[in-house]
Amino acid sequence: MSASTSLPIIGFIGTGVMGRSMAGHLLQAGYPLHVYNRTKAKAEALLANGAVWEDSPGEVARAAEIIITIIGFPQDVEAVYFGEDGVIAQAREGAVLVDMTTSSPRLAQRIAEAAKARGLSALDAPVSGGDLGAREARLSIMVGGEEATFEQVKPVVDVMGKTIVYQGPAGSGQHTKMVNQVAIAAGMLGVCEAMAYAETSGLDPKQVLACIESGAAGSWSLSNLAPRIIDRDFDPGFYVKHFIKDMTIALEEAEAMGLDFPGLQAAKTGYERLAAQGGADLGTHGLFKLYRDTD
Amino acid sequence: MSASTSLPIIGFIGTGVMGRSMAGHLLQAGYPLHVYNRTKAKAEALLANGAVWEDSPGEVARAAEIIITIIGFPQDVEAVYFGEDGVIAQAREGAVLVDMTTSSPRLAQRIAEAAKARGLSALDAPVSGGDLGAREARLSIMVGGEEATFEQVKPVVDVMGKTIVYQGPAGSGQHTKMVNQVAIAAGMLGVCEAMAYAETSGLDPKQVLACIESGAAGSWSLSNLAPRIIDRDFDPGFYVKHFIKDMTIALEEAEAMGLDFPGLQAAKTGYERLAAQGGADLGTHGLFKLYRDTD
Repeated sequence: MSASTSLPIIGFIGTGVMGRSMAGHLLQAGYPLHVYNRTKAKAEALLANGAVWEDSPGEVARAAEIIITIIGFPQDVEAVYFGEDGVIAQAREGAVLVDMTTSSPRLAQRIAEAAKARGLSALDAPVSGGDLGAREARLSIMVGGEEATFEQVKPVVDVMGKTIVYQGPAGSGQHTKMVNQVAIAAGMLGVCEAMAYAETSGLDPKQVLACIESGAAGSWSLSNLAPRIIDRDFDPGFYVKHFIKDMTIALEEAEAMGLDFPGLQAAKTGYERLAAQGGADLGTHGLFKLYRDTD
Repeated sequence: MSASTSLPIIGFIGTGVMGRSMAGHLLQAGYPLHVYNRTKAKAEALLANGAVWEDSPGEVARAAEIIITIIGFPQDVEAVYFGEDGVIAQAREGAVLVDMTTSSPRLAQRIAEAAKARGLSALDAPVSGGDLGAREARLSIMVGGEEATFEQVKPVVDVMGKTIVYQGPAGSGQHTKMVNQVAIAAGMLGVCEAMAYAETSGLDPKQVLACIESGAAGSWSLSNLAPRIIDRDFDPGFYVKHFIKDMTIALEEAEAMGLDFPGLQAAKTGYERLAAQGGADLGTHGLFKLYRDTD
Protein backbone atom coordinates (compact mmCIF):
# COMPACT_ATOMS: atom_id res chain seq x y z
CA MET A 1 0.00 0.00 0.00
CA SER A 2 3.03 2.30 0.19
CA ALA A 3 2.54 3.13 -3.49
CA SER A 4 -0.77 4.74 -2.67
CA THR A 5 0.79 8.10 -1.93
CA SER A 6 1.63 8.47 -5.60
CA LEU A 7 -1.83 7.47 -6.78
CA PRO A 8 -4.44 10.17 -7.42
CA ILE A 9 -7.16 10.75 -4.85
CA ILE A 10 -10.44 9.36 -6.09
CA GLY A 11 -13.88 10.60 -5.17
CA PHE A 12 -16.62 8.03 -5.55
CA ILE A 13 -20.28 9.02 -5.53
CA GLY A 14 -22.82 6.19 -5.53
CA THR A 15 -22.03 3.09 -3.52
CA GLY A 16 -25.03 0.99 -4.50
CA VAL A 17 -24.82 -2.62 -5.70
CA MET A 18 -22.51 -1.74 -8.58
CA GLY A 19 -20.61 1.17 -7.05
CA ARG A 20 -19.63 -0.53 -3.83
CA SER A 21 -17.89 -3.37 -5.69
CA MET A 22 -16.20 -1.01 -8.12
CA ALA A 23 -15.03 1.33 -5.37
CA GLY A 24 -13.83 -1.69 -3.41
CA HIS A 25 -11.48 -2.65 -6.26
CA LEU A 26 -10.05 0.89 -6.24
CA LEU A 27 -9.43 0.73 -2.49
CA GLN A 28 -7.80 -2.63 -2.89
CA ALA A 29 -5.55 -1.25 -5.63
CA GLY A 30 -4.35 1.36 -3.17
CA TYR A 31 -6.20 4.45 -4.33
CA PRO A 32 -7.10 6.96 -1.60
CA LEU A 33 -10.89 7.03 -1.76
CA HIS A 34 -13.41 9.62 -0.63
CA VAL A 35 -17.01 8.48 -0.87
CA TYR A 36 -20.53 9.86 -0.72
CA ASN A 37 -23.82 8.02 -1.06
CA ARG A 38 -27.38 9.16 -0.41
CA THR A 39 -27.80 6.25 2.01
CA LYS A 40 -24.66 6.22 4.16
CA ALA A 41 -25.24 2.65 5.36
CA LYS A 42 -24.42 1.36 1.88
CA ALA A 43 -20.93 2.84 2.18
CA GLU A 44 -20.08 1.30 5.57
CA ALA A 45 -18.07 -1.62 4.21
CA LEU A 46 -15.92 0.77 2.20
CA LEU A 47 -15.45 3.07 5.18
CA ALA A 48 -14.38 0.09 7.29
CA ASN A 49 -11.75 -0.64 4.64
CA GLY A 50 -10.28 2.84 4.73
CA ALA A 51 -12.46 5.04 2.54
CA VAL A 52 -13.14 8.57 3.82
CA TRP A 53 -16.75 9.67 4.18
CA GLU A 54 -17.84 13.03 2.73
CA ASP A 55 -21.21 14.63 3.35
CA SER A 56 -22.10 15.77 -0.16
CA PRO A 57 -21.14 15.47 -3.84
CA GLY A 58 -19.48 18.87 -3.54
CA GLU A 59 -17.35 17.72 -0.60
CA VAL A 60 -16.21 14.70 -2.55
CA ALA A 61 -15.36 16.94 -5.48
CA ARG A 62 -13.33 19.34 -3.33
CA ALA A 63 -11.31 16.40 -1.96
CA ALA A 64 -10.51 14.46 -5.12
CA GLU A 65 -8.55 14.56 -8.37
CA ILE A 66 -10.70 12.05 -10.18
CA ILE A 67 -14.43 11.95 -9.39
CA ILE A 68 -16.36 8.84 -10.32
CA THR A 69 -20.15 8.68 -10.20
CA ILE A 70 -22.48 5.73 -10.62
CA ILE A 71 -25.96 6.63 -9.49
CA GLY A 72 -29.54 5.83 -10.35
CA PHE A 73 -31.29 7.98 -12.89
CA PRO A 74 -30.42 10.88 -15.21
CA GLN A 75 -32.16 13.33 -12.84
CA ASP A 76 -29.81 12.14 -10.06
CA VAL A 77 -26.84 12.64 -12.36
CA GLU A 78 -28.13 16.11 -13.17
CA ALA A 79 -28.43 17.00 -9.49
CA VAL A 80 -25.02 15.57 -8.54
CA TYR A 81 -23.21 17.35 -11.38
CA PHE A 82 -25.12 20.63 -11.71
CA GLY A 83 -26.29 21.29 -8.12
CA GLU A 84 -24.87 24.22 -6.13
CA ASP A 85 -22.93 21.80 -3.96
CA GLY A 86 -22.41 19.60 -6.98
CA VAL A 87 -19.42 18.15 -8.75
CA ILE A 88 -18.93 20.71 -11.51
CA ALA A 89 -19.20 23.75 -9.24
CA GLN A 90 -16.95 22.30 -6.59
CA ALA A 91 -14.27 20.27 -8.37
CA ARG A 92 -10.65 21.40 -8.27
CA GLU A 93 -9.23 22.81 -11.49
CA GLY A 94 -7.86 20.00 -13.65
CA ALA A 95 -10.03 17.35 -12.05
CA VAL A 96 -11.44 14.54 -14.20
CA LEU A 97 -15.11 13.62 -13.85
CA VAL A 98 -16.15 10.11 -14.87
CA ASP A 99 -19.86 9.33 -14.93
CA MET A 100 -20.39 5.57 -15.06
CA THR A 101 -24.15 5.76 -14.63
CA THR A 102 -26.16 4.57 -17.62
CA SER A 103 -27.61 7.91 -18.55
CA SER A 104 -28.54 10.17 -21.45
CA PRO A 105 -25.94 10.85 -24.16
CA ARG A 106 -27.10 14.45 -24.34
CA LEU A 107 -26.69 14.91 -20.60
CA ALA A 108 -23.17 13.49 -20.98
CA GLN A 109 -22.45 16.11 -23.64
CA ARG A 110 -23.81 18.90 -21.39
CA ILE A 111 -21.64 17.71 -18.51
CA ALA A 112 -18.58 17.63 -20.78
CA GLU A 113 -19.21 21.19 -21.98
CA ALA A 114 -19.88 22.57 -18.50
CA ALA A 115 -16.80 20.78 -17.19
CA LYS A 116 -14.61 22.17 -19.94
CA ALA A 117 -15.86 25.70 -19.24
CA ARG A 118 -14.55 25.30 -15.68
CA GLY A 119 -11.18 23.81 -16.63
CA LEU A 120 -12.25 20.25 -15.85
CA SER A 121 -12.41 17.15 -18.06
CA ALA A 122 -15.32 14.74 -18.21
CA LEU A 123 -15.88 11.23 -19.52
CA ASP A 124 -19.06 9.21 -19.86
CA ALA A 125 -18.17 5.59 -19.09
CA PRO A 126 -21.22 3.41 -18.49
CA VAL A 127 -20.70 -0.25 -17.81
CA SER A 128 -22.30 -3.58 -18.57
CA GLY A 129 -21.84 -6.87 -16.83
CA GLY A 130 -24.14 -6.48 -13.84
CA ASP A 131 -23.37 -6.88 -10.16
CA LEU A 132 -21.43 -10.07 -10.81
CA GLY A 133 -19.24 -8.31 -13.38
CA ALA A 134 -18.70 -5.48 -10.89
CA ARG A 135 -17.73 -7.90 -8.10
CA GLU A 136 -15.30 -9.77 -10.32
CA ALA A 137 -13.93 -6.65 -12.08
CA ARG A 138 -15.06 -8.12 -15.39
CA LEU A 139 -17.20 -5.19 -16.52
CA SER A 140 -17.33 -3.91 -20.07
CA ILE A 141 -16.77 -0.17 -19.94
CA MET A 142 -17.66 2.00 -22.92
CA VAL A 143 -16.01 5.39 -22.84
CA GLY A 144 -16.86 8.73 -24.44
CA GLY A 145 -14.99 12.02 -24.13
CA GLU A 146 -11.60 13.36 -25.14
CA GLU A 147 -9.17 10.56 -25.87
CA ALA A 148 -6.36 12.21 -23.90
CA THR A 149 -8.60 12.25 -20.83
CA PHE A 150 -9.39 8.58 -21.40
CA GLU A 151 -5.68 7.75 -21.51
CA GLN A 152 -5.13 9.75 -18.33
CA VAL A 153 -7.66 7.80 -16.26
CA LYS A 154 -7.42 4.45 -18.03
CA PRO A 155 -5.30 2.90 -15.23
CA VAL A 156 -8.12 3.71 -12.81
CA VAL A 157 -10.86 2.38 -15.10
CA ASP A 158 -8.79 -0.75 -15.74
CA VAL A 159 -9.07 -1.68 -12.08
CA MET A 160 -12.86 -2.00 -12.37
CA GLY A 161 -13.36 -3.73 -15.71
CA LYS A 162 -12.08 -6.12 -18.32
CA THR A 163 -13.22 -4.89 -21.74
CA ILE A 164 -12.60 -1.16 -21.86
CA VAL A 165 -13.13 0.47 -25.25
CA TYR A 166 -12.87 4.14 -26.15
CA GLN A 167 -15.83 4.95 -28.37
CA GLY A 168 -15.45 8.62 -29.35
CA PRO A 169 -16.39 12.13 -28.21
CA ALA A 170 -18.58 13.00 -25.21
CA GLY A 171 -21.79 11.01 -25.22
CA SER A 172 -20.28 8.09 -27.18
CA GLY A 173 -20.01 5.91 -24.10
CA GLN A 174 -23.68 6.43 -23.36
CA HIS A 175 -24.61 5.88 -27.01
CA THR A 176 -22.69 2.59 -26.95
CA LYS A 177 -24.52 1.50 -23.82
CA MET A 178 -27.80 2.37 -25.55
CA VAL A 179 -26.80 0.13 -28.48
CA ASN A 180 -26.23 -2.63 -25.93
CA GLN A 181 -29.63 -2.08 -24.33
CA VAL A 182 -31.44 -1.85 -27.68
CA ALA A 183 -30.02 -5.24 -28.69
CA ILE A 184 -31.08 -6.73 -25.35
CA ALA A 185 -34.58 -5.21 -25.36
CA ALA A 186 -36.11 -6.90 -28.41
CA GLY A 187 -33.90 -9.90 -27.71
CA MET A 188 -35.65 -10.39 -24.37
CA LEU A 189 -39.01 -10.32 -26.15
CA GLY A 190 -37.68 -13.10 -28.36
CA VAL A 191 -36.43 -15.19 -25.45
CA CYS A 192 -39.62 -14.78 -23.40
CA GLU A 193 -41.91 -15.41 -26.36
CA ALA A 194 -39.89 -18.46 -27.34
CA MET A 195 -40.06 -19.90 -23.82
CA ALA A 196 -43.78 -19.12 -23.56
CA TYR A 197 -44.34 -20.91 -26.87
CA ALA A 198 -42.30 -23.90 -25.72
CA GLU A 199 -44.17 -24.35 -22.44
CA THR A 200 -47.64 -23.62 -23.80
CA SER A 201 -47.24 -26.04 -26.70
CA GLY A 202 -46.42 -28.79 -24.21
CA LEU A 203 -42.75 -29.17 -25.04
CA ASP A 204 -40.13 -29.85 -22.38
CA PRO A 205 -38.38 -26.45 -22.36
CA LYS A 206 -35.08 -27.93 -21.20
CA GLN A 207 -35.05 -30.34 -24.15
CA VAL A 208 -35.85 -27.44 -26.43
CA LEU A 209 -32.97 -25.38 -25.04
CA ALA A 210 -30.63 -28.35 -25.48
CA CYS A 211 -31.54 -28.34 -29.15
CA ILE A 212 -31.53 -24.63 -29.99
CA GLU A 213 -29.18 -22.72 -27.72
CA SER A 214 -26.00 -23.54 -29.60
CA GLY A 215 -27.47 -22.49 -32.96
CA ALA A 216 -28.74 -19.35 -34.67
CA ALA A 217 -31.26 -18.71 -31.89
CA GLY A 218 -28.48 -18.68 -29.31
CA SER A 219 -27.86 -15.66 -27.11
CA TRP A 220 -26.51 -14.72 -23.71
CA SER A 221 -30.10 -14.17 -22.59
CA LEU A 222 -31.26 -17.57 -23.84
CA SER A 223 -28.40 -19.41 -22.16
CA ASN A 224 -28.39 -17.45 -18.91
CA LEU A 225 -31.98 -16.33 -18.35
CA ALA A 226 -34.17 -18.97 -20.02
CA PRO A 227 -33.09 -21.62 -17.47
CA ARG A 228 -34.12 -19.21 -14.70
CA ILE A 229 -37.45 -18.65 -16.44
CA ILE A 230 -37.98 -22.42 -16.50
CA ASP A 231 -37.25 -22.50 -12.77
CA ARG A 232 -39.53 -19.49 -12.16
CA ASP A 233 -36.61 -17.67 -10.57
CA PHE A 234 -37.21 -14.02 -11.41
CA ASP A 235 -34.73 -12.48 -8.97
CA PRO A 236 -32.99 -9.53 -10.49
CA GLY A 237 -29.67 -9.71 -12.16
CA PHE A 238 -30.80 -6.48 -13.78
CA TYR A 239 -33.93 -4.71 -12.53
CA VAL A 240 -36.98 -4.10 -14.72
CA LYS A 241 -37.22 -0.53 -13.38
CA HIS A 242 -33.66 0.27 -14.47
CA PHE A 243 -34.15 -1.33 -17.85
CA ILE A 244 -37.24 0.83 -18.42
CA LYS A 245 -35.12 3.90 -17.69
CA ASP A 246 -32.54 2.79 -20.26
CA MET A 247 -35.15 1.96 -22.91
CA THR A 248 -36.77 5.34 -22.36
CA ILE A 249 -33.47 7.11 -23.02
CA ALA A 250 -32.73 4.90 -26.02
CA LEU A 251 -36.13 5.50 -27.55
CA GLU A 252 -35.85 9.27 -27.06
CA GLU A 253 -32.44 9.24 -28.68
CA ALA A 254 -33.68 7.08 -31.55
CA GLU A 255 -36.58 9.42 -32.15
CA ALA A 256 -34.25 12.41 -32.06
CA MET A 257 -32.22 10.67 -34.79
CA GLY A 258 -35.36 10.02 -36.84
CA LEU A 259 -35.25 6.27 -36.21
CA ASP A 260 -38.39 4.17 -35.68
CA PHE A 261 -37.68 1.10 -33.51
CA PRO A 262 -40.75 -1.15 -33.31
CA GLY A 263 -38.84 -3.87 -31.46
CA LEU A 264 -37.60 -1.50 -28.77
CA GLN A 265 -41.04 0.10 -28.57
CA ALA A 266 -42.74 -3.28 -28.12
CA ALA A 267 -40.22 -4.23 -25.42
CA LYS A 268 -40.66 -0.95 -23.55
CA THR A 269 -44.46 -1.27 -23.70
CA GLY A 270 -44.22 -4.81 -22.34
CA TYR A 271 -41.89 -3.85 -19.50
CA GLU A 272 -44.06 -0.89 -18.55
CA ARG A 273 -47.06 -3.23 -18.35
CA LEU A 274 -45.02 -5.58 -16.19
CA ALA A 275 -43.98 -2.72 -13.88
CA ALA A 276 -47.58 -1.54 -13.64
CA GLN A 277 -48.50 -5.06 -12.51
CA GLY A 278 -45.96 -4.86 -9.69
CA GLY A 279 -42.95 -6.28 -11.52
CA ALA A 280 -40.61 -3.26 -11.35
CA ASP A 281 -38.24 -5.04 -8.96
CA LEU A 282 -38.07 -8.29 -10.90
CA GLY A 283 -35.15 -9.20 -13.11
CA THR A 284 -35.58 -8.38 -16.78
CA HIS A 285 -36.48 -12.00 -17.60
CA GLY A 286 -39.62 -11.41 -15.46
CA LEU A 287 -41.07 -10.21 -18.77
CA PHE A 288 -42.01 -13.87 -19.20
CA LYS A 289 -44.82 -13.29 -16.69
CA LEU A 290 -46.67 -11.23 -19.27
CA TYR A 291 -46.97 -14.34 -21.41
CA ARG A 292 -47.66 -16.95 -18.78
CA ASP A 293 -48.94 -15.47 -15.55
CA THR A 294 -51.12 -18.37 -14.53
CA ASP A 295 -48.40 -20.40 -12.90
CA MET B 1 -19.67 -49.60 -49.63
CA SER B 2 -20.29 -53.35 -49.34
CA ALA B 3 -22.30 -52.69 -46.17
CA SER B 4 -24.87 -50.78 -48.20
CA THR B 5 -26.84 -53.88 -49.07
CA SER B 6 -27.89 -54.19 -45.44
CA LEU B 7 -28.87 -50.52 -45.15
CA PRO B 8 -32.48 -49.49 -45.76
CA ILE B 9 -33.40 -47.89 -49.06
CA ILE B 10 -33.98 -44.19 -48.60
CA GLY B 11 -36.25 -42.02 -50.68
CA PHE B 12 -35.34 -38.35 -50.68
CA ILE B 13 -37.75 -35.68 -51.91
CA GLY B 14 -36.44 -32.14 -52.18
CA THR B 15 -32.85 -31.63 -53.31
CA GLY B 16 -32.60 -27.88 -52.88
CA VAL B 17 -29.76 -26.11 -51.10
CA MET B 18 -30.38 -28.00 -47.86
CA GLY B 19 -31.62 -31.31 -49.23
CA ARG B 20 -28.82 -31.90 -51.71
CA SER B 21 -26.17 -31.68 -48.96
CA MET B 22 -28.17 -33.85 -46.58
CA ALA B 23 -28.87 -36.48 -49.25
CA GLY B 24 -25.20 -36.38 -50.22
CA HIS B 25 -24.20 -37.42 -46.71
CA LEU B 26 -26.61 -40.37 -46.91
CA LEU B 27 -25.14 -41.47 -50.24
CA GLN B 28 -21.66 -41.17 -48.82
CA ALA B 29 -22.67 -43.27 -45.82
CA GLY B 30 -23.68 -46.01 -48.23
CA TYR B 31 -27.47 -45.74 -48.22
CA PRO B 32 -29.22 -46.66 -51.47
CA LEU B 33 -30.93 -43.41 -52.42
CA HIS B 34 -33.92 -42.70 -54.65
CA VAL B 35 -34.55 -39.02 -55.28
CA TYR B 36 -37.19 -36.70 -56.65
CA ASN B 37 -37.13 -32.93 -56.98
CA ARG B 38 -39.45 -30.55 -58.83
CA THR B 39 -36.42 -29.21 -60.72
CA LYS B 40 -34.43 -32.25 -61.82
CA ALA B 41 -31.28 -30.23 -62.51
CA LYS B 42 -30.82 -29.70 -58.79
CA ALA B 43 -30.51 -33.47 -58.31
CA GLU B 44 -27.85 -34.02 -61.01
CA ALA B 45 -24.88 -34.09 -58.64
CA LEU B 46 -26.60 -36.74 -56.52
CA LEU B 47 -27.51 -38.79 -59.61
CA ALA B 48 -23.89 -38.61 -60.78
CA ASN B 49 -22.90 -40.06 -57.41
CA GLY B 50 -25.22 -43.03 -57.65
CA ALA B 51 -28.67 -41.83 -56.61
CA VAL B 52 -31.62 -43.20 -58.58
CA TRP B 53 -34.01 -40.70 -60.16
CA GLU B 54 -37.76 -41.14 -59.67
CA ASP B 55 -40.40 -39.16 -61.52
CA SER B 56 -42.78 -38.33 -58.67
CA PRO B 57 -43.16 -38.38 -54.88
CA GLY B 58 -45.27 -41.53 -55.27
CA GLU B 59 -42.53 -43.30 -57.22
CA VAL B 60 -40.01 -42.46 -54.52
CA ALA B 61 -42.43 -43.76 -51.91
CA ARG B 62 -42.99 -47.05 -53.77
CA ALA B 63 -39.21 -47.59 -53.95
CA ALA B 64 -38.12 -46.77 -50.42
CA GLU B 65 -38.31 -47.93 -46.81
CA ILE B 66 -37.58 -44.56 -45.29
CA ILE B 67 -38.86 -41.45 -47.09
CA ILE B 68 -37.29 -38.11 -46.23
CA THR B 69 -38.75 -34.82 -47.41
CA ILE B 70 -37.35 -31.32 -47.19
CA ILE B 71 -39.28 -28.97 -49.41
CA GLY B 72 -40.39 -25.37 -49.51
CA PHE B 73 -43.70 -24.47 -47.98
CA PRO B 74 -46.48 -26.22 -46.04
CA GLN B 75 -48.63 -26.32 -49.18
CA ASP B 76 -45.82 -28.24 -50.92
CA VAL B 77 -45.63 -30.63 -47.99
CA GLU B 78 -49.39 -31.08 -48.20
CA ALA B 79 -49.22 -31.91 -51.91
CA VAL B 80 -46.26 -34.28 -51.58
CA TYR B 81 -47.83 -36.20 -48.68
CA PHE B 82 -51.54 -36.12 -49.50
CA GLY B 83 -51.57 -36.07 -53.32
CA GLU B 84 -52.89 -39.05 -55.29
CA ASP B 85 -49.37 -39.90 -56.37
CA GLY B 86 -48.14 -38.76 -52.98
CA VAL B 87 -46.14 -40.31 -50.21
CA ILE B 88 -48.90 -41.49 -47.91
CA ALA B 89 -50.99 -43.12 -50.64
CA GLN B 90 -47.99 -44.84 -52.27
CA ALA B 91 -45.64 -45.82 -49.44
CA ARG B 92 -45.01 -49.49 -48.70
CA GLU B 93 -46.53 -50.83 -45.51
CA GLY B 94 -44.17 -50.25 -42.57
CA ALA B 95 -42.36 -47.38 -44.25
CA VAL B 96 -41.18 -44.45 -42.15
CA LEU B 97 -41.86 -40.91 -43.36
CA VAL B 98 -39.59 -38.13 -42.11
CA ASP B 99 -40.55 -34.56 -42.98
CA MET B 100 -37.58 -32.27 -42.38
CA THR B 101 -39.24 -29.20 -43.91
CA THR B 102 -39.95 -26.40 -41.47
CA SER B 103 -43.71 -26.60 -41.57
CA SER B 104 -46.86 -26.41 -39.51
CA PRO B 105 -47.10 -28.50 -36.31
CA ARG B 106 -50.73 -29.22 -37.09
CA LEU B 107 -49.88 -30.45 -40.57
CA ALA B 108 -47.27 -32.71 -38.96
CA GLN B 109 -49.97 -34.14 -36.70
CA ARG B 110 -52.29 -34.70 -39.68
CA ILE B 111 -49.52 -36.49 -41.57
CA ALA B 112 -48.77 -38.69 -38.54
CA GLU B 113 -52.44 -39.65 -38.21
CA ALA B 114 -52.91 -40.37 -41.90
CA ALA B 115 -49.69 -42.38 -41.95
CA LYS B 116 -50.72 -44.44 -38.96
CA ALA B 117 -54.08 -45.22 -40.59
CA ARG B 118 -52.15 -46.74 -43.50
CA GLY B 119 -49.70 -48.76 -41.38
CA LEU B 120 -46.90 -46.23 -41.80
CA SER B 121 -44.95 -44.21 -39.24
CA ALA B 122 -44.17 -40.52 -39.52
CA LEU B 123 -41.79 -38.10 -37.85
CA ASP B 124 -41.51 -34.34 -38.10
CA ALA B 125 -37.83 -33.47 -37.95
CA PRO B 126 -37.09 -29.90 -39.02
CA VAL B 127 -33.53 -28.67 -38.90
CA SER B 128 -31.59 -25.57 -38.07
CA GLY B 129 -28.07 -24.66 -39.01
CA GLY B 130 -28.51 -23.38 -42.55
CA ASP B 131 -26.80 -24.49 -45.74
CA LEU B 132 -23.41 -24.49 -44.01
CA GLY B 133 -24.73 -26.77 -41.28
CA ALA B 134 -26.21 -29.04 -43.94
CA ARG B 135 -22.92 -29.18 -45.88
CA GLU B 136 -20.92 -29.98 -42.77
CA ALA B 137 -23.50 -32.35 -41.26
CA ARG B 138 -23.67 -30.10 -38.20
CA LEU B 139 -27.44 -29.49 -38.26
CA SER B 140 -29.59 -29.38 -35.17
CA ILE B 141 -32.51 -31.72 -35.76
CA MET B 142 -35.62 -31.50 -33.58
CA VAL B 143 -37.79 -34.58 -33.76
CA GLY B 144 -41.47 -35.20 -33.08
CA GLY B 145 -43.40 -38.46 -33.39
CA GLU B 146 -43.38 -41.83 -31.69
CA GLU B 147 -40.15 -42.41 -29.81
CA ALA B 148 -39.78 -45.97 -31.15
CA THR B 149 -39.90 -44.62 -34.69
CA PHE B 150 -37.27 -42.05 -33.76
CA GLU B 151 -34.99 -44.79 -32.42
CA GLN B 152 -35.56 -46.80 -35.60
CA VAL B 153 -34.38 -44.04 -37.96
CA LYS B 154 -31.91 -42.31 -35.66
CA PRO B 155 -28.87 -43.84 -37.41
CA VAL B 156 -30.08 -42.26 -40.64
CA VAL B 157 -30.77 -38.88 -39.06
CA ASP B 158 -27.39 -39.00 -37.31
CA VAL B 159 -25.67 -38.95 -40.69
CA MET B 160 -27.11 -35.51 -41.46
CA GLY B 161 -26.80 -33.64 -38.16
CA LYS B 162 -24.95 -33.11 -34.93
CA THR B 163 -27.47 -32.15 -32.24
CA ILE B 164 -30.43 -34.47 -32.57
CA VAL B 165 -33.03 -34.22 -29.83
CA TYR B 166 -36.31 -36.10 -29.53
CA GLN B 167 -38.92 -33.57 -28.44
CA GLY B 168 -42.16 -35.49 -28.03
CA PRO B 169 -45.26 -36.60 -29.96
CA ALA B 170 -46.09 -35.68 -33.56
CA GLY B 171 -45.76 -31.95 -34.14
CA SER B 172 -43.18 -31.48 -31.37
CA GLY B 173 -40.33 -31.19 -33.83
CA GLN B 174 -42.13 -28.41 -35.66
CA HIS B 175 -43.09 -26.74 -32.40
CA THR B 176 -39.43 -26.78 -31.34
CA LYS B 177 -38.39 -25.24 -34.64
CA MET B 178 -41.02 -22.55 -34.08
CA VAL B 179 -39.52 -21.81 -30.67
CA ASN B 180 -36.18 -21.40 -32.43
CA GLN B 181 -37.65 -19.01 -35.01
CA VAL B 182 -39.58 -17.02 -32.40
CA ALA B 183 -36.35 -16.42 -30.47
CA ILE B 184 -34.59 -15.34 -33.67
CA ALA B 185 -37.40 -13.08 -34.91
CA ALA B 186 -37.48 -10.44 -32.19
CA GLY B 187 -33.75 -10.99 -31.70
CA MET B 188 -33.13 -9.81 -35.28
CA LEU B 189 -35.15 -6.67 -34.55
CA GLY B 190 -32.83 -6.08 -31.62
CA VAL B 191 -29.67 -6.62 -33.66
CA CYS B 192 -30.80 -4.44 -36.57
CA GLU B 193 -32.10 -1.66 -34.32
CA ALA B 194 -28.87 -1.75 -32.30
CA MET B 195 -26.73 -1.50 -35.43
CA ALA B 196 -28.92 1.25 -36.86
CA TYR B 197 -28.58 3.17 -33.59
CA ALA B 198 -24.80 2.67 -33.58
CA GLU B 199 -24.29 3.93 -37.13
CA THR B 200 -26.78 6.79 -36.95
CA SER B 201 -25.36 8.13 -33.69
CA GLY B 202 -21.95 8.34 -35.32
CA LEU B 203 -20.29 5.52 -33.44
CA ASP B 204 -17.83 3.15 -35.08
CA PRO B 205 -19.99 -0.01 -35.19
CA LYS B 206 -16.96 -2.31 -35.08
CA GLN B 207 -15.71 -0.66 -31.88
CA VAL B 208 -19.20 -1.01 -30.45
CA LEU B 209 -19.32 -4.71 -31.30
CA ALA B 210 -15.91 -5.19 -29.70
CA CYS B 211 -17.34 -3.80 -26.50
CA ILE B 212 -20.75 -5.45 -26.37
CA GLU B 213 -20.74 -8.80 -28.16
CA SER B 214 -19.22 -10.79 -25.33
CA GLY B 215 -21.71 -9.48 -22.77
CA ALA B 216 -25.42 -9.62 -22.05
CA ALA B 217 -26.26 -8.24 -25.51
CA GLY B 218 -24.37 -11.08 -27.16
CA SER B 219 -26.04 -13.46 -29.57
CA TRP B 220 -25.31 -15.65 -32.56
CA SER B 221 -26.99 -13.03 -34.73
CA LEU B 222 -24.94 -10.16 -33.29
CA SER B 223 -21.66 -12.02 -33.74
CA ASN B 224 -22.41 -13.52 -37.15
CA LEU B 225 -24.75 -11.10 -38.89
CA ALA B 226 -23.91 -7.65 -37.48
CA PRO B 227 -20.45 -7.72 -39.13
CA ARG B 228 -22.16 -8.49 -42.44
CA ILE B 229 -24.57 -5.60 -41.85
CA ILE B 230 -21.59 -3.30 -41.30
CA ASP B 231 -20.13 -4.54 -44.60
CA ARG B 232 -23.53 -4.14 -46.33
CA ASP B 233 -23.39 -7.81 -47.32
CA PHE B 234 -27.01 -8.92 -47.31
CA ASP B 235 -26.56 -12.22 -49.16
CA PRO B 236 -28.78 -14.90 -47.75
CA GLY B 237 -27.67 -17.37 -45.19
CA PHE B 238 -31.38 -17.70 -44.54
CA TYR B 239 -33.90 -16.08 -46.93
CA VAL B 240 -36.35 -13.41 -45.83
CA LYS B 241 -39.13 -15.17 -47.77
CA HIS B 242 -38.60 -18.41 -45.86
CA PHE B 243 -38.41 -16.63 -42.54
CA ILE B 244 -41.74 -14.94 -43.25
CA LYS B 245 -43.24 -18.39 -43.85
CA ASP B 246 -41.91 -19.60 -40.51
CA MET B 247 -43.07 -16.53 -38.60
CA THR B 248 -46.52 -16.87 -40.17
CA ILE B 249 -46.80 -20.43 -38.90
CA ALA B 250 -45.45 -19.48 -35.47
CA LEU B 251 -47.86 -16.60 -35.12
CA GLU B 252 -50.83 -18.75 -36.15
CA GLU B 253 -49.81 -21.39 -33.64
CA ALA B 254 -49.31 -18.78 -30.91
CA GLU B 255 -52.73 -17.32 -31.57
CA ALA B 256 -54.26 -20.79 -31.50
CA MET B 257 -52.68 -21.23 -28.07
CA GLY B 258 -54.04 -17.87 -26.91
CA LEU B 259 -50.60 -16.24 -26.84
CA ASP B 260 -50.01 -12.64 -27.87
CA PHE B 261 -46.46 -12.11 -29.18
CA PRO B 262 -45.79 -8.42 -29.85
CA GLY B 263 -42.11 -9.05 -30.60
CA LEU B 264 -42.84 -11.72 -33.19
CA GLN B 265 -45.63 -9.59 -34.63
CA ALA B 266 -43.34 -6.57 -34.96
CA ALA B 267 -40.68 -8.72 -36.63
CA LYS B 268 -43.14 -10.25 -39.08
CA THR B 269 -44.54 -6.83 -39.96
CA GLY B 270 -41.03 -5.55 -40.58
CA TYR B 271 -40.04 -8.50 -42.75
CA GLU B 272 -43.23 -8.23 -44.77
CA ARG B 273 -42.47 -4.56 -45.41
CA LEU B 274 -38.95 -5.55 -46.46
CA ALA B 275 -40.29 -8.21 -48.83
CA ALA B 276 -42.80 -5.74 -50.30
CA GLN B 277 -39.87 -3.43 -51.03
CA GLY B 278 -38.13 -6.19 -52.99
CA GLY B 279 -36.15 -7.76 -50.16
CA ALA B 280 -37.66 -11.27 -50.18
CA ASP B 281 -34.45 -12.84 -51.44
CA LEU B 282 -32.13 -11.07 -49.03
CA GLY B 283 -30.73 -12.75 -45.96
CA THR B 284 -32.66 -12.16 -42.76
CA HIS B 285 -30.19 -9.49 -41.62
CA GLY B 286 -31.42 -7.45 -44.62
CA LEU B 287 -34.02 -6.23 -42.13
CA PHE B 288 -31.41 -3.56 -41.37
CA LYS B 289 -32.40 -1.87 -44.64
CA LEU B 290 -35.70 -0.84 -43.08
CA TYR B 291 -33.78 1.29 -40.60
CA ARG B 292 -31.08 2.71 -42.84
CA ASP B 293 -31.99 2.56 -46.49
CA THR B 294 -30.11 5.65 -47.58
CA ASP B 295 -26.74 4.01 -47.97
